[in-house]
Amino acid sequence: MKVDGVAMRPLRALPERDAVLVIDQRLLPHRLHLETLRKPDEVFTAIRDMWVRGAPLIGASAAYGLALQMNLDASDCALEEVADRLRLARPTAANLDWAITRMLQRLRPVPPAGRKQAAWDAADAIAEEDVQVNAAIGRHGLALLQAIAASKPGPVQVLTHCNAGWLATVDWGTATSPIYQAHAAGLPVHVWVDETRPRNQGASLTAWELGKVGVPHTLIADNAGGHLMQHGRVDIVIVGCDRVTARGDACNKIGTYLKALAAHDNGVPFYVAMPTSTLDLSLQDGVAEIPIEDRSGREVTHLSGLDAAGQVVEVRIAALGTQAANPAFDVTPARLVTGLITEHGVIPAEESALRRLMETTR
Amino acid sequence: MKVDGVAMRPLRALPERDAVLVIDQRLLPHRLHLETLRKPDEVFTAIRDMWVRGAPLIGASAAYGLALQMNLDASDCALEEVADRLRLARPTAANLDWAITRMLQRLRPVPPAGRKQAAWDAADAIAEEDVQVNAAIGRHGLALLQAIAASKPGPVQVLTHCNAGWLATVDWGTATSPIYQAHAAGLPVHVWVDETRPRNQGASLTAWELGKVGVPHTLIADNAGGHLMQHGRVDIVIVGCDRVTARGDACNKIGTYLKALAAHDNGVPFYVAMPTSTLDLSLQDGVAEIPIEDRSGREVTHLSGLDAAGQVVEVRIAALGTQAANPAFDVTPARLVTGLITEHGVIPAEESALRRLMETTR
Repeated sequence: MKVDGVAMRPLRALPERDAVLVIDQRLLPHRLHLETLRKPDEVFTAIRDMWVRGAPLIGASAAYGLALQMNLDASDCALEEVADRLRLARPTAANLDWAITRMLQRLRPVPPAGRKQAAWDAADAIAEEDVQVNAAIGRHGLALLQAIAASKPGPVQVLTHCNAGWLATVDWGTATSPIYQAHAAGLPVHVWVDETRPRNQGASLTAWELGKVGVPHTLIADNAGGHLMQHGRVDIVIVGCDRVTARGDACNKIGTYLKALAAHDNGVPFYVAMPTSTLDLSLQDGVAEIPIEDRSGREVTHLSGLDAAGQVVEVRIAALGTQAANPAFDVTPARLVTGLITEHGVIPAEESALRRLMETTR
Repeated sequence: MKVDGVAMRPLRALPERDAVLVIDQRLLPHRLHLETLRKPDEVFTAIRDMWVRGAPLIGASAAYGLALQMNLDASDCALEEVADRLRLARPTAANLDWAITRMLQRLRPVPPAGRKQAAWDAADAIAEEDVQVNAAIGRHGLALLQAIAASKPGPVQVLTHCNAGWLATVDWGTATSPIYQAHAAGLPVHVWVDETRPRNQGASLTAWELGKVGVPHTLIADNAGGHLMQHGRVDIVIVGCDRVTARGDACNKIGTYLKALAAHDNGVPFYVAMPTSTLDLSLQDGVAEIPIEDRSGREVTHLSGLDAAGQVVEVRIAALGTQAANPAFDVTPARLVTGLITEHGVIPAEESALRRLMETTR
């Protein structure tokens, strides 16, 4: 997508194949800064500390982490070691494991001398495939928005949670892809952007993204979505996901489940934009089986922003010594999901549909 | 309640009857500062700008606002004028109207010369009654917590939203009163404190209150409660309310409805602590009929906290120019409310029960 007229991606490999450039997303929306990563350990840190985040982008970043390792030491041992290490950078997103598994399948049969080129080719392929997948998700989701637009006057009111935007992917985003395509097609759309505490990805990233492209949007506290739905002010909810089980339970940013409940209670369709790389057919019951990352309580008690002097400062918002818990994701049971917007089309959140999709497309 | 061993109330009339002392709650948890209010206009500002907040405290504060007016001009005209003005300070809480109506009923028949004493007596009575009402709510709620404690090992896990603590009332709080009484009785209790964006009353006030009394508690993002309930980590939800309709729809801080949905979905009992002064028998359908205050979007995009130097600073957390919407309350339909904890006992959220209660106790 473009930022102030300049095409930009949150992750881009240098043509020299010795480094990747990433947007350090911790600094947004106050500062757009590109960081150069040259070592797999730097990629590990960038994923763990959320310079890059979002399930698809985590997957693509990890692929380049392996490629950077192949520049340094392409032995079997080094390959397996860095793969094991990168898998641990974040526990919840299925795409991390998916990308590393795909890289290993590609690289293991290749002799070490050929692994550098194979690794960069494979990582590039993962990145480019992500762009195509998200564009396809956008096309399928656009049809949903067009159907709503045809049924009512005024803009289509979309609510989204967290950032499943282009910053969370290599390009387009997942949940935002239908929105960007609608906007480009001249379909009037307005987005309610959940702030998404505690890390504020909605306020910091999604609102920033939408603003740069000129999509009308309004920031709201995470608490507000239910009230808006009760008053008929939301036509559709579209969110991303970090892992979807065989039966369609969808793990996404903490608080997604609450929005799904409100959508269900008010007859608002609730869609999960899901690249099939996010699917984990080895799991059934998402609430019981998906590992949920517990992050530092400091993310709840402290917060960064721009002060009156234009400096980014961290402030403490709770009383000194207040302990906080910080589960980073929750699971929305399939029964609350109207449909999954995949790159192959919109399907119900049901095991039969998911297995059929994977059989016909693999 | 006590703060560092000193008995304290968020609102206290001076014995000279020429001013009231209030805690300026905008400065908590970083600074405990008492402000002296001498004029009804200062009370209006204190209510509107949330130096004092919480439905019961708003009611008591408005009563003293009328009393301060009687010091200055006790004419019929001045009485009605200040009453009309104070009613507009906040639109949602039923207690504001309740307290002003009660003051007018008491003062209108009194000749102007006697109104000063009558007004201060009446305001003192409203304040003292609030303390007694909340103590009674605590006793009835304690029985609910004792029943849970008898049914399981470990502490009773309570989740609360916003601040319905002693800072929201003259003393004890409403939702916190059962918790304080349980703690005093040696019943092990642990409280999940919703941060309560955008004004963070949970992080700033409830966590501070509980910490000062030594009640074990953990601060969480508003997004986290559903996940905790899915995993059996919440035994009961207790919240306050700003207005309850004849059929039991409960208006409370924005986001309460989402927690009620999650409680319902997970079989967690959801109780509303409700002094009967919060009841508005003139309304039925809370979602359709209760006026919801729209506050400034700046409360969403900007936030105050303590910086590393110990100074309270305001920071902007969204991109420059981001527009925000800020509805301050939502309505939880009666069907999601397990029961109302009133000063007269715990009753179902049903019109027949509410009308019977008001008939037998008025």
